[in-house]
Amino acid sequence: MNNSVKQITKKKIIFIGAGNLATCLSLAWQKKGISIYQVFSRTEKSARELATKLNCSWTTNILEIKDDADLYVFSVKDSVLKDLLETMPPNNGIWVHTAGSMSISVFPDSHSSCGVFYPLQTFSKDRPVDFTDIPIFLEARNADVYALLEDIAKQLSNNVIRASSLQRQYLHIAAVFACNFTNHMYAIAENILSAHKLDFKSLIPLIQETAQKTISLHPIDAQTGPAVRYDENVINKHLDFLSDTPTLQTLYKELSNSIHKYAVNTHLQENEPNKL
Amino acid sequence: MNNSVKQITKKKIIFIGAGNLATCLSLAWQKKGISIYQVFSRTEKSARELATKLNCSWTTNILEIKDDADLYVFSVKDSVLKDLLETMPPNNGIWVHTAGSMSISVFPDSHSSCGVFYPLQTFSKDRPVDFTDIPIFLEARNADVYALLEDIAKQLSNNVIRASSLQRQYLHIAAVFACNFTNHMYAIAENILSAHKLDFKSLIPLIQETAQKTISLHPIDAQTGPAVRYDENVINKHLDFLSDTPTLQTLYKELSNSIHKYAVNTHLQENEPNKL
Repeated sequence: MNNSVKQITKKKIIFIGAGNLATCLSLAWQKKGISIYQVFSRTEKSARELATKLNCSWTTNILEIKDDADLYVFSVKDSVLKDLLETMPPNNGIWVHTAGSMSISVFPDSHSSCGVFYPLQTFSKDRPVDFTDIPIFLEARNADVYALLEDIAKQLSNNVIRASSLQRQYLHIAAVFACNFTNHMYAIAENILSAHKLDFKSLIPLIQETAQKTISLHPIDAQTGPAVRYDENVINKHLDFLSDTPTLQTLYKELSNSIHKYAVNTHLQENEPNKL
Repeated sequence: MNNSVKQITKKKIIFIGAGNLATCLSLAWQKKGISIYQVFSRTEKSARELATKLNCSWTTNILEIKDDADLYVFSVKDSVLKDLLETMPPNNGIWVHTAGSMSISVFPDSHSSCGVFYPLQTFSKDRPVDFTDIPIFLEARNADVYALLEDIAKQLSNNVIRASSLQRQYLHIAAVFACNFTNHMYAIAENILSAHKLDFKSLIPLIQETAQKTISLHPIDAQTGPAVRYDENVINKHLDFLSDTPTLQTLYKELSNSIHKYAVNTHLQENEPNKL
């Protein structure tokens, strides 16, 4: 272990929040020999559960958060972050949050040692995650803070990237499409199958290949299906079959239109030189 | 090689169509020792390309399709299948199509040896596919045809399933959601990132984990993101940032509403017993 790693593993880290991201991130650091100093959560059960896993102390009282830590990781819902920061007693540690959609300016101006630590992944408490390839997007109010965040991020990931608050906002929106909305497509598919006594498991190879194909090719080149060339034959048949679920029917129509628009635009761009 | 396998590998198979599915399926059979007898396509280039890969003869003239094959696999666009079948000279072989959305009744009533052979996967000509886990859904007009289709399907896949034309219709719609619409979510995400000088590669671990998570858990349990509890804070911020792309804004809004509706319904169902 070299000196800088030794220094990092001696840092005292407190987690403010004990949700999905806080759980996965703190456990990942612990695995790398960086022990967690304390956990705060307003929910006693969550605080106790995470602290037990981390073998550290916990509190539900914001005034009992220890004031001698090096790093305070605020990993709470966007809607409570601002209020929480306003009641947080001042200290000399570095404060970071982990929210894609919150600007760095949410921190009080008086606190210059602050930044953002945003790992782009979907987290669940009970699903341990390997951080090696997960991109971690960093932002900081000054170079010293950035350097420390970079050191501690690189303990986990080979993919540490600087991003502004504005870029992170778009990263978060893109992640909503690539993860949350994608998962909803799976949920709709499952719903359609179970209504017709078919097994969701039948879709597993398709789901895996769709993800792999978009990664190997490119989402535009990987696009297949009736909407690409707007095959009205198939599309109208599908819309008929969805007529008893009007919400799904509308979604189907709009997504097909959107796919077709993308395909036409790409095609136009590709043919541009020939047109001139 | 046992006798029934020997018999299968001696079958003469003709492909009518040389597109993505025809290419992957014929090459997969070839790999299993089942050589293809002839390829027909109205497009000379496609016919020649596939026949070269398969080392077999090809034609673009429907009247030159050999009439002594055991199996004719019609793998063409839905919109041309009906017309093609009407001009196809009669013969004594088994006719199958590979289309999710076409009923078995598309075959002429006079031809009793017919069926459907529907592998549920997304295919591209240049991406070889391992059929081992791909579900193949079969339907046939009589038991003898079904038995042969089952034998030849099992040469490729461990997951051969009987499905009616109606079930296959819903399988196809579910596949459009789980594959085509999912890929469109990736395309939108890529578009958002590239507009803000961010790399699509950053989404790869998220895309992989989202697919794996829905497979391990269940789409409903794997759902995360601001829409589940309708976090207006985040959702309204995202809608603001999408205000210069109104189509995306509308999609974002409708998908979020749909996710929230699913989450509420699941929650209600889960709590049902307590309510009584």
